[in-house]
Amino acid sequence: MIQFSTSYKETACQARTGQLTTPHGIIETPVFMPVGTLGPVKGITPDELKSCGFGLMLSNSYHLYLRPGHELIAELGGLHRFASWSGAILTDSGGFQMVSLSDLRHISDEGVTFKSHLDGSLHQLTPERCIEIQRALGSDIMMVLDECPTHPCTTEQAREAVRRSRHWARQCKVAAEGSGQALFGIVQGGLDADLRRTAAQDLVAMGFDGYALGGLSLGEDKLAMLTMIEVTIPELPEDHPRYLMGVGLPEDLVEGVIRGIDMFDCVMPSRHGRTGWLFTSTGRVMIKNAQYMRDESPIDAQCACPVCQKYSRAYLRHLFVSNEMLGVRLNTLHNLWYYQQLMKHMREAIQQDRLLAFREQFYATREASPRSRAYLDEIDVGVVDRNGRSRKEQVL
Amino acid sequence: MIQFSTSYKETACQARTGQLTTPHGIIETPVFMPVGTLGPVKGITPDELKSCGFGLMLSNSYHLYLRPGHELIAELGGLHRFASWSGAILTDSGGFQMVSLSDLRHISDEGVTFKSHLDGSLHQLTPERCIEIQRALGSDIMMVLDECPTHPCTTEQAREAVRRSRHWARQCKVAAEGSGQALFGIVQGGLDADLRRTAAQDLVAMGFDGYALGGLSLGEDKLAMLTMIEVTIPELPEDHPRYLMGVGLPEDLVEGVIRGIDMFDCVMPSRHGRTGWLFTSTGRVMIKNAQYMRDESPIDAQCACPVCQKYSRAYLRHLFVSNEMLGVRLNTLHNLWYYQQLMKHMREAIQQDRLLAFREQFYATREASPRSRAYLDEIDVGVVDRNGRSRKEQVL
Repeated sequence: MIQFSTSYKETACQARTGQLTTPHGIIETPVFMPVGTLGPVKGITPDELKSCGFGLMLSNSYHLYLRPGHELIAELGGLHRFASWSGAILTDSGGFQMVSLSDLRHISDEGVTFKSHLDGSLHQLTPERCIEIQRALGSDIMMVLDECPTHPCTTEQAREAVRRSRHWARQCKVAAEGSGQALFGIVQGGLDADLRRTAAQDLVAMGFDGYALGGLSLGEDKLAMLTMIEVTIPELPEDHPRYLMGVGLPEDLVEGVIRGIDMFDCVMPSRHGRTGWLFTSTGRVMIKNAQYMRDESPIDAQCACPVCQKYSRAYLRHLFVSNEMLGVRLNTLHNLWYYQQLMKHMREAIQQDRLLAFREQFYATREASPRSRAYLDEIDVGVVDRNGRSRKEQVL
Repeated sequence: MIQFSTSYKETACQARTGQLTTPHGIIETPVFMPVGTLGPVKGITPDELKSCGFGLMLSNSYHLYLRPGHELIAELGGLHRFASWSGAILTDSGGFQMVSLSDLRHISDEGVTFKSHLDGSLHQLTPERCIEIQRALGSDIMMVLDECPTHPCTTEQAREAVRRSRHWARQCKVAAEGSGQALFGIVQGGLDADLRRTAAQDLVAMGFDGYALGGLSLGEDKLAMLTMIEVTIPELPEDHPRYLMGVGLPEDLVEGVIRGIDMFDCVMPSRHGRTGWLFTSTGRVMIKNAQYMRDESPIDAQCACPVCQKYSRAYLRHLFVSNEMLGVRLNTLHNLWYYQQLMKHMREAIQQDRLLAFREQFYATREASPRSRAYLDEIDVGVVDRNGRSRKEQVL
């Protein structure tokens, strides 16, 4: 199973560092998990992930269930061995992909019925089946099956999703017994603060190894997302990891850590790598742009990654516009490195009780980035107070 | 420039080992050159190429001329620096791609007019322009512009191509003066032994740094290809490298080395890697086949490559059928390693004067491979004699 302990806590915000001990290594938190949908992070070897500093990755149960099948993976010794990854793995429940990728679906208290996006075959996922799949994969951390309502949704829809998710969470907990794998609960509740609080309280009463915030970053504005974090965190136990699912931009990570989040996952570094969107300390570089045609400098002069040590923007642009696979690979590697370094720098800042100063510096370095300025304008929170409550929250 | 010296010569066949000294390192021959069309071998970093043992690669002038342009590469310090490759580079003339990739083309004694396969724009390549492009790229070894007739062609067409190629070779030689880059001539002549001999004699009289055999492996049968090698090699000077262009299969490399070839290039290890065709000591493995679904063994139990050390056939099959980019990358890396090891083992065998025994073992290990048996049936040469003449050759 896992163990979690916090080490440093910021005095001026909710941020903390911690250690997540898993059967496959000790993970320093706050941590970002890259996404290896079908095993690998697209184009990247396990050795490269390790060399970036990652010790924990996320894999998608839905995809692995459909192809090559969880039973085959179990037969071949589990996902760690199959994918030759010696680090830790968190598997999601598959519920989110069923809703987002599948054409036809039917949700009832029993579970989710869906059509495979690969061949149209019909499948049913119950809470028990969801855990059975994750047990077969042998992940270090499993997630409960939850219902994630689309955004926007009515309060009634959000309430119904919370009710059903609570029901499923209880069944998942029973099904996970004796697995030796950790299980995290997932707080839903749309953008309704009261629903979020109640959902959190109910899950805490059931008792999980960690608590996730789901159903965010679905298109709602940033202030709404951060406010939902702020109302949920105080309901969660200090001595358990808190995981913000499917998030996000570097700005999201900074704001999430400040509000007490310990774990993140997102496809952004790899997916954006494939589209030539490169993360840098001063904002994004869209490598296809003609301005980089003769640019001999590295992606980010501040970056010590293997790509920035060796390749120019001009060459990476050439690879990208020529559809050379190596370009995607190098872009992804740089982005992963950027995310990992950002988390590392935040952990160091927390240990020195200077995360808010780090945040100021983070935005100052990106002052030329219109996207980063727009982000700040949108959240308009200033510094959150000691209870993690923003001005917005105080008027909710 | 380059220097070439031979070290060991087989007594029972034409094979020899040598050292090709270039401004970017010393290359042991016989050598196989992987193809980095637009800079990189598709999906592979320069460091990985080096770790396989490659010190010399081929790049395509035609592709780099069209994108990003040879002038841009010159401005950015040449191809070695642009692609971050510290090894040696041989550039082809571009002539072959113009004929094979371009819709519209017109060949005259002046040069080749062709339409870009990218945007349909019209370009003319003269011998002078061909060398200008390769000088801008800054390769260690340049190739003359030649006319490569399609297969099959009439004796008249082959004769005309030889005449024109001779004319262009002379112009290229003048244009290359003072470049500090080596220049190889190319022997054409279709499947006509007399034309091949005359073409070789004329080029040798002009004097080049090395001699290539072009216009082979275009669909003619294997015996015809090997016979053309056998008639050409005796016309070439012993103290210059001999390069068989665009070839080929592992069997081709063995037969080519036995007949006195020092250099090869081919897209096979990388292109076949992308289609899941994996080279092994016992023949090919088509990794998509269902028989590998549960196969925990490596691609080739005899192989020490980083892929075979770490991944199972089952996982590589999963990556391939799921269209995961990492699969292509690992397949390509394995194939490159296989080719490099094959060349290394042949060099060692030549040093011990046992290449013919090596050849016997090579085919014996593949006796279960129908393709390898068919190859042997097709060439039906037995062991060539001391003059490199097969039975077939003796009746020509």
